[in-house]
Amino acid sequence: MLEAKINITLKKTIADPQGLTVKHALESLNYKEVQEVRMGKHVTVRLDSADVEKAKKSIDAMCRQLLSNPIIEDYSFEIKEL
Amino acid sequence: MLEAKINITLKKTIADPQGLTVKHALESLNYKEVQEVRMGKHVTVRLDSADVEKAKKSIDAMCRQLLSNPIIEDYSFEIKEL
Repeated sequence: MLEAKINITLKKTIADPQGLTVKHALESLNYKEVQEVRMGKHVTVRLDSADVEKAKKSIDAMCRQLLSNPIIEDYSFEIKEL
Repeated sequence: MLEAKINITLKKTIADPQGLTVKHALESLNYKEVQEVRMGKHVTVRLDSADVEKAKKSIDAMCRQLLSNPIIEDYSFEIKEL
């Protein structure tokens, strides 16, 4: 069994109104040191497979095909054995 | 400048209908090896600070106070200098 942890983030050039709202909320809670907040997704996928190299290709394809929007998002992932 | 990368995940005992929907979508795209999908949040916070220990405490407080719901979610983070 393998587990992939995928982080999907908005590209730097894309505006993030949700992140801005969270930043303002943190400021109003007196966290004055906050400069920027960006919101993204964290997806955990468990695979019934033992082949890490094959799993890397598979997860990469899932990210491009379904999990992320490559026009506005970047993704990165790491795979570990369970 | 410090950057914190925070992962917020649903606790294991909490049902994740969004993750289940994504699992079914991946299966319908012929990724038969997928066993489980869990959806979470990935938050990037930039801090105008150079004190990593202080930043750790600050980010931990932000997670408890605003970013996560400790009843149903777990969180983890790492902080690096930019």
